[in-house]
Amino acid sequence: MGMTITEKILARGCGAKEVHAGQIVNAKIDLAMTQDASGPIAFNEFRELGIPVWDKKKIFVCIDHFAPPTTLAQADTLKINADFARDYEIEHFFNIRGISHQLICEGGHIRPGMVAVGADSHTTTYGALGAFSTGIGSTEMCSVFATGELWFRVPEAIKVVVSGKLPEHVYSKDIILKLLSMIQANGATYKTLEFCGDTIADLSVEARLTLCNMSVEGGAKNAIIAPDEKTITYLEARGIKRGDMDLFQSDSDAKYIQEIRIDASELVPYVAKPHSPANGVPVGEVEGVPLQQVIIGSCTNGRTEDFKIAAGILRGHTVPRDLKCLITPASNQVIAELSQKGYLQVFADAGCIICNAGCNGCGIHALVNDGENCLSTNNRNYLGRMGSAKGSVYLSSPATAAASAISGKITDPRSR
Amino acid sequence: MGMTITEKILARGCGAKEVHAGQIVNAKIDLAMTQDASGPIAFNEFRELGIPVWDKKKIFVCIDHFAPPTTLAQADTLKINADFARDYEIEHFFNIRGISHQLICEGGHIRPGMVAVGADSHTTTYGALGAFSTGIGSTEMCSVFATGELWFRVPEAIKVVVSGKLPEHVYSKDIILKLLSMIQANGATYKTLEFCGDTIADLSVEARLTLCNMSVEGGAKNAIIAPDEKTITYLEARGIKRGDMDLFQSDSDAKYIQEIRIDASELVPYVAKPHSPANGVPVGEVEGVPLQQVIIGSCTNGRTEDFKIAAGILRGHTVPRDLKCLITPASNQVIAELSQKGYLQVFADAGCIICNAGCNGCGIHALVNDGENCLSTNNRNYLGRMGSAKGSVYLSSPATAAASAISGKITDPRSR
Repeated sequence: MGMTITEKILARGCGAKEVHAGQIVNAKIDLAMTQDASGPIAFNEFRELGIPVWDKKKIFVCIDHFAPPTTLAQADTLKINADFARDYEIEHFFNIRGISHQLICEGGHIRPGMVAVGADSHTTTYGALGAFSTGIGSTEMCSVFATGELWFRVPEAIKVVVSGKLPEHVYSKDIILKLLSMIQANGATYKTLEFCGDTIADLSVEARLTLCNMSVEGGAKNAIIAPDEKTITYLEARGIKRGDMDLFQSDSDAKYIQEIRIDASELVPYVAKPHSPANGVPVGEVEGVPLQQVIIGSCTNGRTEDFKIAAGILRGHTVPRDLKCLITPASNQVIAELSQKGYLQVFADAGCIICNAGCNGCGIHALVNDGENCLSTNNRNYLGRMGSAKGSVYLSSPATAAASAISGKITDPRSR
Repeated sequence: MGMTITEKILARGCGAKEVHAGQIVNAKIDLAMTQDASGPIAFNEFRELGIPVWDKKKIFVCIDHFAPPTTLAQADTLKINADFARDYEIEHFFNIRGISHQLICEGGHIRPGMVAVGADSHTTTYGALGAFSTGIGSTEMCSVFATGELWFRVPEAIKVVVSGKLPEHVYSKDIILKLLSMIQANGATYKTLEFCGDTIADLSVEARLTLCNMSVEGGAKNAIIAPDEKTITYLEARGIKRGDMDLFQSDSDAKYIQEIRIDASELVPYVAKPHSPANGVPVGEVEGVPLQQVIIGSCTNGRTEDFKIAAGILRGHTVPRDLKCLITPASNQVIAELSQKGYLQVFADAGCIICNAGCNGCGIHALVNDGENCLSTNNRNYLGRMGSAKGSVYLSSPATAAASAISGKITDPRSR
């Protein structure tokens, strides 16, 4: 029986010739990531074992959430992370240099065919590079540190076929918001979302990362996009040799429990209304909602390509003085690129708040108050996640966010 | 009897031909500034009066401290600021665009001869542009909003004569740290610190702002530097006509209660030890102190010239992974300049944390923990001001901070 990409990766991971959805497998872990908020639980448990970590080169300890810390409790948390990285000689300790997911992807640490786990739900991101990657709990992470293995129930797969040319001002963020509105927040629970079709093939790697990042908002165990020449080019530029990539493709007779088709050519800019990423509607339905805050960035849309789009719209404009428009780049490398390309200057001239690379825009450093509305390119708009439970957060693409930042209200980027 | 610059400005401000130290005068206010933490006390009091502000063009409402807000209480504070700016039609509302003092200076809002007050102690900064400027309490600010006037006791003046050429790697920050070590934290209480001498004449306007910014750490009511061609050039570039500047100079027979002489050619890099800016010692006395955090920026040293010095040292280096090295530019315009000149890229490549323009580095977004040491280019290292009361903060120039960031311990920039 044919296998999906995900099944092939898990088969390789557990040393089997073939595995299929529903099986329980024990896979070797190629990369294990913690972030500052989730890591300490694993670290404290692990210290009690009194053993070395299974592989200090495969563990990534990242500080990106409380970055920098604004309370002493947060500073304590960061110290626990730094102490663990030092005491266990963890090779990759990313201390407020950007968001874990971006650093791992742009740094060439993830390769097609890998089995990766992270103590962060948006670890699904790396599927855009042809890896199996998923978020796990901190106590499971402790077990990974000890054994280098973890059990998985091989997920059933949903095939998402996206075809047709995306209209102007419509992006991969709009595809995923549309998909989530179709399947809802539990529509892919413990499933693989496998994206394919000519639209996906046309997307840049950056745009694909957005899709896989938000797949967890539909409950997906993992998301996957078959590696192609774009993937290979992206990774080769990061020092990975083609021979070190397991370029799995799904077999033609692989089994899918569902197939979803999206016609990209008919898509419009989408906005997820409060308080769920699955509450997506065409931007027209929420146009005019007044905004006190706009956030452009995050692990979902904080890459150079995203800011190129936003800068193209914001250039020569200033945001209303009552509006806070935050720019939250996903990494220091992105900041360097934005600086080189002049986009940072566009944002500075527009009166934006150019934040350090990290998760700070995602409910940590920039809060919405009672009655305030925020439009963000983040991945989550849960009730109270970004400050007041009496505030509202909407989600959109960088284009919609930038257009809205200029007018101070939700605005269709096609109308500018 | 001759007058000092400060006396001449206050005389103009109160419409008198002559005033002298010790007199109580009532001066018209040319510029009144609040920041987000201090403003709300004045705003709430003022609303009870039920009258319009005396001059909505002369009031500057700035949000720079809780920028962006990290708690709902801070978000509430920001709302009070925004509401006041809107309800009273305040012309200048700077909503997280940089640090108040920098925005007022670089924006051409302050002119020589002005009487300026700010509800922030570092309002002394503007003396570098030949204005009388001082920090006042929030309740006094309420009275200024109502009347446009405020009483002052004309301060006695201390003349600080700095002469000789500054050695390489020694800057205006070292001059002020040296001076503070000489006069201590109360050595200039309610006095004017008037800086003169060929060294001061040689300093850029940016470097002079550093001197006047920190003068309040000696207790000074105000600091002043006689406006010269550099001042005029700086202000003309900001749209101020020479005819609109009151270019007061101290009379040769003006009275000073003290004269302090500093030989700049003999200066060395200075570091203020915990827990007072007046605890300055030559860097050699603290060399090797291990650092967990370095901050380069703030209203004291967050201008392009400062970052040029820091980038020159950091270029091609990376900071140790355990070290947090924060870059806190003083304004969006500074960010734009750092971007243009490639300095931001140097900082990003070095693994620094490039923060948004604001006061966040100064004890708000980046805290030291128990037992941690921070070296900062800020102006204050009071016990507990930057997080834990069991942490230690040292102060230095951007050059000393950058050299120390590379080695992870306090380092003499001359040794690199």
